[in-house]
Formats: sequence, C-alpha cells, structure tokens
Amino acid sequence: MTINLTDAIQYAHNQHENTLNELKHLVKIPSVSTDPDHTADMHEAARWLENKLTSLGFTARIFETDKHPIVFAEYKFSPDATTILVYGHYDVQPPDPLDLWKTGPFMPEIRGEYLFGRGASDMKGQVIASINAVESLLKFDSLKVNVKFIIEGEEEIGSPSLKKFLEEHKELFTANIALNPDTGMIAPDVPTITLGLRGVAHFELNIYGPNRDLHSGMFGGAIHNPAQVMCDVLSGMHNPDGSVALPGFYDSVRTLSEDEKAELARLPMNEDTYIQQTGVPKLWGEPGFTAAERIGARPTLEINGMYSGYLGEGSKTIIPSFAHGKVSLRLVPNQDPAEVKQQIQEYLESKIPDTVTWDIKGPRGASASIVDRNLPATIALRDALETVWGKAPVYKLEGGSVPVVGSMENILGIKSVLTGFGLPGDNIHSPNEKLHLPTWKNGIDTLIHFFSNMTKI
Amino acid sequence: MTINLTDAIQYAHNQHENTLNELKHLVKIPSVSTDPDHTADMHEAARWLENKLTSLGFTARIFETDKHPIVFAEYKFSPDATTILVYGHYDVQPPDPLDLWKTGPFMPEIRGEYLFGRGASDMKGQVIASINAVESLLKFDSLKVNVKFIIEGEEEIGSPSLKKFLEEHKELFTANIALNPDTGMIAPDVPTITLGLRGVAHFELNIYGPNRDLHSGMFGGAIHNPAQVMCDVLSGMHNPDGSVALPGFYDSVRTLSEDEKAELARLPMNEDTYIQQTGVPKLWGEPGFTAAERIGARPTLEINGMYSGYLGEGSKTIIPSFAHGKVSLRLVPNQDPAEVKQQIQEYLESKIPDTVTWDIKGPRGASASIVDRNLPATIALRDALETVWGKAPVYKLEGGSVPVVGSMENILGIKSVLTGFGLPGDNIHSPNEKLHLPTWKNGIDTLIHFFSNMTKI
Repeated sequence: MTINLTDAIQYAHNQHENTLNELKHLVKIPSVSTDPDHTADMHEAARWLENKLTSLGFTARIFETDKHPIVFAEYKFSPDATTILVYGHYDVQPPDPLDLWKTGPFMPEIRGEYLFGRGASDMKGQVIASINAVESLLKFDSLKVNVKFIIEGEEEIGSPSLKKFLEEHKELFTANIALNPDTGMIAPDVPTITLGLRGVAHFELNIYGPNRDLHSGMFGGAIHNPAQVMCDVLSGMHNPDGSVALPGFYDSVRTLSEDEKAELARLPMNEDTYIQQTGVPKLWGEPGFTAAERIGARPTLEINGMYSGYLGEGSKTIIPSFAHGKVSLRLVPNQDPAEVKQQIQEYLESKIPDTVTWDIKGPRGASASIVDRNLPATIALRDALETVWGKAPVYKLEGGSVPVVGSMENILGIKSVLTGFGLPGDNIHSPNEKLHLPTWKNGIDTLIHFFSNMTKI
Repeated sequence: MTINLTDAIQYAHNQHENTLNELKHLVKIPSVSTDPDHTADMHEAARWLENKLTSLGFTARIFETDKHPIVFAEYKFSPDATTILVYGHYDVQPPDPLDLWKTGPFMPEIRGEYLFGRGASDMKGQVIASINAVESLLKFDSLKVNVKFIIEGEEEIGSPSLKKFLEEHKELFTANIALNPDTGMIAPDVPTITLGLRGVAHFELNIYGPNRDLHSGMFGGAIHNPAQVMCDVLSGMHNPDGSVALPGFYDSVRTLSEDEKAELARLPMNEDTYIQQTGVPKLWGEPGFTAAERIGARPTLEINGMYSGYLGEGSKTIIPSFAHGKVSLRLVPNQDPAEVKQQIQEYLESKIPDTVTWDIKGPRGASASIVDRNLPATIALRDALETVWGKAPVYKLEGGSVPVVGSMENILGIKSVLTGFGLPGDNIHSPNEKLHLPTWKNGIDTLIHFFSNMTKI
C-alpha cells in the first residue's frame, strides 16, 4: 500500500492554475440559497460538483430536498479501510450591499494574493481544496481510504433539510470520522484546528401591556410600561459582573483544563486585537477569564434585537402597548439545550410581574460540540498541518456554532475534525469576500497529507 | 352695569341649532396641522374664526407664523374692566386610520346625543362654545369684561410658533387671567376644574457599541452589547417598587395636602376604571399613592420607544452596533426641568460603563403648573359650573401637560383657569371622535355664567 505523496503534492502544485479556474467557475455560479430567484443556479452548482466528483471516479448523485439539492459522492477504496466523510456546502450568502463591492461578487478576480468573489472563502474554496486533494492522490493511486462527500446547498439559511436527510439516509453515511473544513485559520502563519464549537439557543419574547398605545400623561404612573418590563427582564439576565444570571446556568458548564487554557493563551489574539477588530472603547465580560476563553469556552447571552413603542423621529409621549425582544445564547459543552430552555422559562416566570402578559417563541437550540485532541483523526490533521506549515497548529475553541457537527454526531454517531483555510479578514458574509491564495495552496497540501495520514489509522 | 343673564342664556338655547351648524362648518374644514397638504385648510379655518369674531364686534386679525396662522381678536369693553384671555386651537389631529371611522372624519354627523367628526371635541367644539357664550352676552349688551382670543393652529404639533409669538407680541396680551377650555370633564354629570397639569421632560439616548453588527458567536462574551447596556440603563431608572430612581428626583416634589387627597378621592375613578380603560391585567406604580394621585400628583418616567439590532422576522445572532431609547418624564409642581435635566445627566454618567460610547438629545421640558383653587377666576368658574350642573365641580390634577399654560405664565405672567366640556370617551386623537352635545350645551351656559361672574371681580 504505497502512497506516492511527493508526486501527489507536485501534481497539485502543477495543476494549481487549473484548480483555481475550477474555483472561479464555481464562484461565477450565484448559488445564493436564500433567494428563490437563484433556484436554477443552485442546481447548476450541484450538477457541476456531481460531474466533477464523477470524473474522479466517485459514484456521485444529487438528492432533491424541499429546498436545494444535496450532492452525495462516494469513493470506495476498500471495505476494510478507514472511511472519511467530507462535509461542504455550495451555497453562499447574498452579496448585498452590491455597491460596496469593488468588482462583481460573481465575477471572480485576482488582486494581489487574493481571489475576490462571493463564496471564494466561505466555502467554495474549501470544497475545491478538498476535491483537489483527493484528485491529486487518486492520480497516483494513492488514495488509500474510502471518501464520502456530502455537499449541501442550505448552510447559509440554517440547513433546514439536512437533519431530515441524514435521518432518512443513515445507511449512506457510515464513516469513521467527518472532516469539516468550514472553520478557519487565525492568521496565514497560524495553522489552526478547531476543537470546540459553541451551541446555540434563541428565543423571542413579547410583553403585552395596555390594549393600545396610551397617552403617558393620562395613564403614566398607573400602567406598567411593557418596554420597561422588557428592559427589567433583559437587564436581569446578566449579573452586574457580566455573568449570565439564569438559575443554574453554569452548573453543567465544562471547566477548562489547564492544558486548554494554555492552548487558548497561545492564540495570537489579545484584548487589543478584539478592540481593533470592533472599534469598541474597551472589552467587557465575565470576570476570571480571558477574552479568548470567554468567547471560546464560556456560555454567553446576547440581546440580538428589541423594539417597542415609537420608533420614528423625535418624541411621542406614549406608554407602548407591547415590547418585543430577541435573545440568543451560546452554549458550551455539557450544557443541555433542554435544561437551558427550562432555566429561561423559570427565569421569565419568576421575573415578569402580573401587571403585564407575555409569550415566548422558542427557545430552540443546538448543543455545543467538542473534539478530543487525542482523537486519531485530530492527530492526523495536526501532523498534516505541522508538515506543511513547519510548526504545530494551535487549537481553537470557536465561539460560533456549526450545527451540522452536532447533527452528524447525534444522528450518525460520527465525530468531526474541524479545520479550514479561510482567514478572519476574508469578509465572509460581507462585501468583497476574498480568499488568500497562498494559504489556500497550503491547505490543499495539508489535506493531501491528512488523507494520507488517515491511511495509517 | 346690568347683565341680562336670563336673556343671554335663552338666546344661546334658541340659537343652538345655528351654533351647531357653525361647529359643523368648522369641523368640515380639515385643518390637520401636521400635514403640509392642508395648508390652505389651515388658512380657511383661521379666516372663518377671524370673520366670525369680527361679526361679533371684535377687532380680529390673523398673524402669519413660520407654519400656521394665529388668530387674535379683542373686544374692549372698558379700560377698567377685567380682561380675560381665551385660549383655543383650530388645528386637529390627523384622522388616520381612516378605515376605522364609521362616517367621514370631516363629514360631521349627529348620531344619538353625539356629533361625530375630527376636532368636534378637541377642540373646535370648545372654541365655538366660548365664542357662542360671548355672542349671547353681547346680544344683550351684557359682556362687561374685556375679552381677547388667541386661537392657534399648531397645538397638535407641539405649538412650535407660539412661544416666540407671545414673546414678540407681549403688548397684545395684557390680561388678568386666561381661560383655557382645552381640558375636559370626568363624566357628563361631574363638572370638572383642572387645577394642576404635569410638566414634561423628554430625551433620546443613543448607546454605541461595535462599529458594525457583530457575529455573536465570534465576539459574544468580549464585547459589551449596547442593547444590554440600554436595558440596564432604562431598567435602572426605576426602583423595584415603581418609584423613579434618578438621584434627588423627589427632593422638590410638592406634597399633596390632605384636602387635595380628599379632592382626588372624590374623582369617580378607581382601579377598575383604569383597568377597564386599558385592558391591563393589573395596575402598577409607586407605593403609597392611589392611581389618581400617581397620575395627577406624582412625577413619572416612561420609555416611549426603543430599538436595537435585528427587527425583522425570526432570529439573527448578532451583537447590535447601537441601541436607541426615547424616554419622557411627567413632572409635578416645584420640580424644576433644569434640575431634572441635571439628574438625568448625572444618572447616565454614573450608570453607563466605559465599554460603550453614548450621546443624548435633550432633555427638553416644560414645568408643571398648578392653579390656586382660591383664585377669584377659579371661584368664578366653580360658581358657574355649580349653577349649571346643580352641584359643585371636582378639582382634578391632570396627568398630561398643556405647555401653553406654562408659556402664558412664564412669558406673559398670566395664570390660567382650566376647564372644558369634552369627555374621556370622546376618542380625541382616535377614529370616531365625538362631542357629547348635552354636555356641550351645558358648557356654553357655564361659560356665559363665567364671563358674567368675572364682571364682579
């Protein structure tokens, strides 16, 4: 079972211009999942991937869903070999606001070391890198693992079809491990493995007061203002020190080990980095933890939106009839979304007075996930990154949530290893999205090494 | 100096159909001050009043302002006689939502005991009643006081031209007392004098966090959410018991006398009345005071509007970039708006943390006013009401603010007596505004008695 690694990598390098053209071709297809006008484009992107994977020797097919098609492809090396399930998505965020783009979002253009275009980084570039790694190994009969691809078209709209699809097609997805290249690197010279992802819970709260907006002079002092109740309720969800005040909220929160703390301290992110990235005068948060720890390893609660009463110019002296609030929480490992839901309910019931009425939509949520750094696949990924970059990767606890990781674990029993070759400055979800090509090339090499390393497992 | 009171009142009664037609004519003119499309209507209403008052023997003229004309008219009986300045406004609220009106807002229609139409109660009906009272006395050479009318066209948009006008034309407004019939009665059988009006202060607060909406996963836990700060700030403006928490806020608040408390207790308003009027499950407010006391005699603070972050359907997991809040306060006698402004500023400076930035628009405000119940004009009004209704009026401390009362006192040194013949169910500012005609007729009689009683002063 010889793997011709040198030739595979050389091939990838030689083919680079061609791979880049494939990526440009895919970026040109405006596969905006949220916009019904792009339904045909979604199918075109899915068909392109199906054809590409078929051309490499995969058995590929397209599954229709209620919304956008899912591409599934399989390369069977041997029933005894390790099977790797590669996750990807071919859909992209809408390009608005269009006038802030220097060149068309679907007219990929290279400027300097970057390829500009919607989806170049998130995540068409990562999908092409994964395919190209497999292609380079296949060229020399050196792919000695089974590989499955699942590439969905609904990630940017919350993957509404994916769970059901996984549940209904479990038989397709037998695998030892999933590779999810949808997270990113901290900097071009900092190879990164994402070990943890936060879970999420969110809800909408309505508080109802009088049956219409009231004259604040005629009723102020006798009627409880629902905007004030909303402020009391939302304010009371945090303690003055910045910790979350829901009853029992921290009871099951996983404690960071000293190792993990040291790992997070290695991240090239300090307070100044966050201040520069956001323009705030000063950071904030739960005491006793660094910013990276608070974002990566501590649960948080945010008001995402709220409104009540008069929203126009100037003043209007009313007691509003109702108030609306949107809240989301980021959860960490060991926190059960069902328990958090219970804590929210308990808090609201004890906090909201009987001078108003209220209802809640949600909470709905997904649990956090964490990957063992000693998992063989994590080690294979670490070695691959170290080989290419010449230094060990950092391990990151990502503050965001990638619900597919939880779905794969809960529905299929498959753990994921997480990496990716996008950078924080890539403007994903913003105008002028870009992909740093030197990092991306290293990424392809890394994935070749990863698939090769996985052979030994 | 004989006053032929019986004939004057008989004349008013005989003329009633005619007076009602004048009111209908005035209601037909859609003098909506906030809508620039109605500029010509504003002038038509002003001219009608000018002509009407001229026909009675007044010297009337129209003053143009930056916005809508002011009608000024003067009847000189004798340099030695008492001079009464009657305040009115001929502008009306916009009629929207139109589809909730049973008949056209500017097509006055009598149904049962009511005249329906925009402005019938607020306050074209009151203006016509005042003019008709004067007319009835003049008919029998029985108006033995000097009378001035000032009828503005901007009350419903906050009287932006009035202060400047009063300041620039002080010489026109020498008078002993002002009569302001722009407040109302509690019920058809409860003649009412308004002794107090609350003052008002209002401000808008902006709290700024990051320079754009942030991904709550990537930054949640390190960046202070401006919506949360807004909730903390607004929530903290009240104590848990419902009192206002601004520093020193109650220091100069005038204490209610036992007499005044007894007077307020006579009002036919109990907790159930307020609950029925508003549909809330339960009343709320500062402990130790009845609802009528809290509304009439205690200062209050209300959130009139607020917004932050994502206002659309569903959820969006962001940390909003900023939050906006609109707050107004009702002030009571002896509270100085300038001191309250200082208290607000102090509170905000001590409360808002340095993790965000903020600015404030305002506070702007007007002080409360209170009329002595032993003022000769108040006694003249009380006697007039008692004569017509056969029982003594109640004295009300109104929760609302009528800034013109303060302007007349501060700029002209003229105190106001406040009454009016509208009712709480008149739907002023709402669809299907109506005027209760039997009460209105009594009102005309009352004003005839009032002008007559003022002769003796």
